[in-house]
Formats: sequence, structure tokens, C-alpha cells
Amino acid sequence: MSKSRRGDRGDQQPEFHAGAWLAGTGPDNDIAVCTRARLARNLRGFPFSPCLDEARAAELYEFAVEQLQQPGMPEKLGILELDSVDDLERSVLVERHLISRDLVAAKRRRGVAFDTAESVAIMINEEDHLRMQVFAPGLQTEAVWRRAERLDDAVMQRLPVAWSEEFGFLTSCPTNTGTGLRLSVMVHLPGLVWSDEIDKATNVAQKIHLAVRGLYGEGSRALGDFYQVSNQITLGREESQILADVQLAVGRIVQWEREVRGALQRGAARVRTLDRVHRALGTLERAQILTSEEAMGCLSATRFGIETKLLSGFTINQVNKALLLCQPGHLQRHTRERLLPEERDQRRAQLLREVLGLG
Amino acid sequence: MSKSRRGDRGDQQPEFHAGAWLAGTGPDNDIAVCTRARLARNLRGFPFSPCLDEARAAELYEFAVEQLQQPGMPEKLGILELDSVDDLERSVLVERHLISRDLVAAKRRRGVAFDTAESVAIMINEEDHLRMQVFAPGLQTEAVWRRAERLDDAVMQRLPVAWSEEFGFLTSCPTNTGTGLRLSVMVHLPGLVWSDEIDKATNVAQKIHLAVRGLYGEGSRALGDFYQVSNQITLGREESQILADVQLAVGRIVQWEREVRGALQRGAARVRTLDRVHRALGTLERAQILTSEEAMGCLSATRFGIETKLLSGFTINQVNKALLLCQPGHLQRHTRERLLPEERDQRRAQLLREVLGLG
Repeated sequence: MSKSRRGDRGDQQPEFHAGAWLAGTGPDNDIAVCTRARLARNLRGFPFSPCLDEARAAELYEFAVEQLQQPGMPEKLGILELDSVDDLERSVLVERHLISRDLVAAKRRRGVAFDTAESVAIMINEEDHLRMQVFAPGLQTEAVWRRAERLDDAVMQRLPVAWSEEFGFLTSCPTNTGTGLRLSVMVHLPGLVWSDEIDKATNVAQKIHLAVRGLYGEGSRALGDFYQVSNQITLGREESQILADVQLAVGRIVQWEREVRGALQRGAARVRTLDRVHRALGTLERAQILTSEEAMGCLSATRFGIETKLLSGFTINQVNKALLLCQPGHLQRHTRERLLPEERDQRRAQLLREVLGLG
Repeated sequence: MSKSRRGDRGDQQPEFHAGAWLAGTGPDNDIAVCTRARLARNLRGFPFSPCLDEARAAELYEFAVEQLQQPGMPEKLGILELDSVDDLERSVLVERHLISRDLVAAKRRRGVAFDTAESVAIMINEEDHLRMQVFAPGLQTEAVWRRAERLDDAVMQRLPVAWSEEFGFLTSCPTNTGTGLRLSVMVHLPGLVWSDEIDKATNVAQKIHLAVRGLYGEGSRALGDFYQVSNQITLGREESQILADVQLAVGRIVQWEREVRGALQRGAARVRTLDRVHRALGTLERAQILTSEEAMGCLSATRFGIETKLLSGFTINQVNKALLLCQPGHLQRHTRERLLPEERDQRRAQLLREVLGLG
């Protein structure tokens, strides 16, 4: 999704790029898809976003963009102003986790700075003036934190970030005040879902004050058995403690999911598991109409099948590509057409067969 | 299911024989699977079945069998006493519509006489002393009635059938008194089911006093979108009127189903129909566990796909064979094993793939 690739759209299909969060590499990548650090920062001298009028928002936007483009930044970031692209392109950015639905919905001037690898992104004029994100594939809390810290240092050298001795970083919503850090790991938990142990796992995480959310954050559903585990508490806890909490909890969930996956392949459970995996494949092979929700369910089962070696002939990369392309924005960008929802469901069914080399 | 074929069981797989009701031939066989005439008859000098003690039932049974084996019968019938076969074989007979579940459940001496083609069957000691059935593939009320009448005449020459000037044939339950005739046509109505018009069609039939029942008669469910349409009234109506009513009503339902099938292949409906048919095929290809109910649903969609030419590479005969073999009795006889329900569901999935040449 670099600017140059976007420029190719009218001429040829851009080479497929899954973004850092779906690279399929990194530690524990059989279950941990992606680790993300998000830092909420605000600029002194500007009201928080809810009180920011149009003119001041534009001023903030220009100031931030100018400063982020100064030489010496640890990341090479391109700037994309949201009003410069159409709603389809904005949907694609949301599906790639580079921007939030809230940023899209905001009426003020707003945009995002991100690198070509899509492993770093800074939203400007979201709920907070700046929301920085760093992604890395697999479970690697330490690595994303170090990179986020370096980025944060560079930003603070260039921009007057609001900070108080008493509270730490000041944020628009008090739930983010303090470190402003949300460290989250996206995990793929079909085993726990199929064994009806997902609620137990979720409760364990919540007991140590971690949140478990769906694929697109707060209030979103766990499409395709993907969950995000993240810290709830940002105030009164050191970053290093947050890292340790998340790393420990996710490590346990990963272990739990692995054990359950083992059990699902043994004894009487094995045939039920095979049934589930192969039925999903049958649907992908044959359905003529597929909603994104059903598609993600089938792709989840396929991913499980590949990881457990119950299925052969497919790669995780194919599934990851399919997971992105089955979403409305990506689907329509790929087919280069604006489609009605029922047309999308048909094209999705076709496209997934192509991507997976079926039929 | 002749005696000689049953004798082969231990040695080799008997050649598959679908019985007259699933031959797949006859008029309007795209929708009308089978026509059946059933005559309820009772013998003078014996109490009706509910009042028949064990000794008298045995006496009646022996008397009837002896008379039915006298030379000159219009049909060559073999006799099978139900106590001479195991419960599996009895299930097979039920699944082939040669006997009723009520006959199996009865505690008295009981049996069935039928021809090798399985187009004629006489149950002895069912709810009535004799229940004669004649089957013909497709919609042919006239033909089954003529054959039933001839059989009835022969039976009446040999046995003292209870008849009253006032009521006609006397039966154990007054709902069958009069002609004792139930004329029924089994129709395959996936189009009406998928278009949500099945209730309308059912209501139309009921308005002219026809009953619409599931695959195995009263109280049974419409597995695989198969319905039986039959007359309700046996008293005060000539056989010729009953024939005309059923022929007319079923003719209309057949026409209705054909129109709906046409509509399901046109316009926006077409892709939804293709989706339904292909998903069913995907399940048959891939499922590792299949209940008979789900199997029949998938086979119904496959049958629809073949009849509408939306699917190629399959024959109606394969589907009919699969429809029989997916039922518990046939399945276990075919695999020559007594299976637990969950084992059956696995073997069924395998067996259907073999029969349909899938995978």
C-alpha cells in the first residue's frame, strides 16, 4: 500500500502484500499472528480531539506532518491524508490495521504516516492527536516495544508531547493515560473455540486485567477465530510490567491452544476435527456465495488444518492472502469494481478459489 | 430382497436393487418418484388385530399364507415371516417400504408376501389382517390401481374378506373403512421447499382432502424433500374418484414444482440455486461424519441438480442408490457390520462417496 503501488492501480494488479501483521513469520506463529504496540500521544497547546475545531485540527495536522517528515526519523514514513483517497482505499487501510474505523469516521483533517513494510503507522487526529503503532509478526512483545520506544523518542524530539509528572502521558480518554501503551497480540484460537474452552481462556486473561477482543478491536467480533489479547491498564504500571504481563498471558494461551489442538487430533475427537476441516474446504471449493464472515470461518479451519498437518497442498501464505482478500475493501480493490454486497459474496467465492488454487 | 438374494449375504455383496419405488422410471419421474396403492382388508371370522390373541393371530397368519400360496395368483409372491429375520433385515424392509414400522412393532405372528421386483407386497397381521400394496415408478395411478384390483380379486377368491353392504370393506380403524384404499404418490419437491412455497402447495392439497406426509408416512418427516400425497377419505367415495383426485392434485403439484424449478434457474435466483446445489456436493465430497438426515438433504440437492442439468457427471440411479444406502438398515447390511450411530455416520460419509464416485 505504498504510494507508488497505489499509483499502479489503474494499470496492473499490484503485487500482493499482506503487511507486517499477516507475514506469517515470527515466534509461535502457528498461533500468535502478530504483536502490536500502540502509543497514544497528544500535543501540548492543542485541545484534545473532542474539543478540537476544524481550523485547529488542520493546523495540528500540518504541524505534525511537517515535523514527522524532518530528517533523522528512525522510520521512513510516507504520509497519506485520508481525504485524498476514496472510501474503498480507506476500507483497505482499516482492513490492514493501519488506521482505525474511528479515524475514517472523524470529520476533521486526518491522515496516517506509514512505512512501505506497513510495520509502523502513526495516525494523526484520531481520538488522540497521535496514535503510533508498531507491528511485528508472531509473538514478540520486546521487539515491538523497543521499536515503538525509539519511534516515540524521535516524535518527542520533534513535537511537544503532553506529559505530566503525576499522570504520565495525557490522553483524550483517561483509560489510556499513563503509559498510553496498549500492547496487543493477535492469536488464532480455533482449537479453544472448537473445544468450547475459549470462554475459560478469556476469563483467565481477564483475571489478570487483560482484554480479549475480536479481529478489529473493541466491540468487534472474533471473525475467523482470531482474538486480540491486550493490556487494559495503562496507568500506574511500568511499560516493562505490561510487556511481562502480556508476554506471560499470551504464552499461556498459546500453550493452551497447542494442547487443545493436540487433543482434537486424538481418539474420537480426530474424526470430528477432520470433518470440520474438510467441510470447510468443501465449502471453499463449492460455494457460489460466501459472506466474509463465513469465508473467515472456513479459512480459519483451513489454517488449523495446515498447522496441524491434517491438510496438505496449501500454504499459510495462501490462507493469509485469502484472509485479507475476502474482506470488502480488498476484494473490491482486487476486482477493480464497486460491488453490491451480494455481488461481493459471489466474487469472494470465486476469488478465494483462485487464491487457494481450488477447482 | 428375494429369499435367494438374502441367502447370498454372507458370501458376497448382493447386486444392488432399488425396488420398484426407486426405479427412477415412469411418467413425470423428474418429480413423481413412485405411485402406490394400498388396500386394507380383514378376514371374516377373526377379530380385528387389536383384539386378536396370539393363538388366533397365528391361526390367521397360517391360513392367509396357505391361501396366498395357492396356484393361480396374479403375482408370484415369496413369504417372509418377520420372526425369521433379524432386526437389521426388518429395518431394511421398512426402508424399502415393503413393511411398516407398525408391523415390525407388532407382537403377534406376522409377515409379508412380496415379489422379487418388490412391486407388490402383502403385509399379514398389521393393523388390518391384510395390507396389500402395489408400487409403480413415476406417476401412474391408473396402472397401480388396476394391478391392485386384480390382486384384490384374487385374494377375495381365496380368503373370506369382511365387507358390508352399508360400509364397504370393514377395517380395524374406521378411517380406512369403505374402499380401504389409500392411493399415494411420492413426490420430490426441493423447488417448492427452497422457494418457501411448500406450505402453500400442501394447503392446496389439503383443501381437497388429500394428506401430505413425509417419506415414511404418517408423522414422519419430509427427509430429502420427499413428500407423499394421498387421499384421506376412503368412505363414500368411489375408487375412480379417488384416482381422479390424486392424479389431478399430484399433476398440479408436479406442474408447480416444475415452474418453481424453472424460476430457481433464472435471474438472481440462479446463483443461489447453484450455491445450494454445489454446497451439497461439497458436503458429500468432504464430510467425514454424515447423519442420514443431512445426507438425504444433500442427495435431494444433488437430485435436483441432475434433473435441472445444473450438475453433470452423476446419474439419478446413483442418487437413488445413495438414498437407500444412507439409511441405517441398508448401510449396516451393506457394510456387514452392526455399527453404533456415530460409526454409521462415518461409514455413511465414506459409502456415499463410493456410490457417487466422489473423491
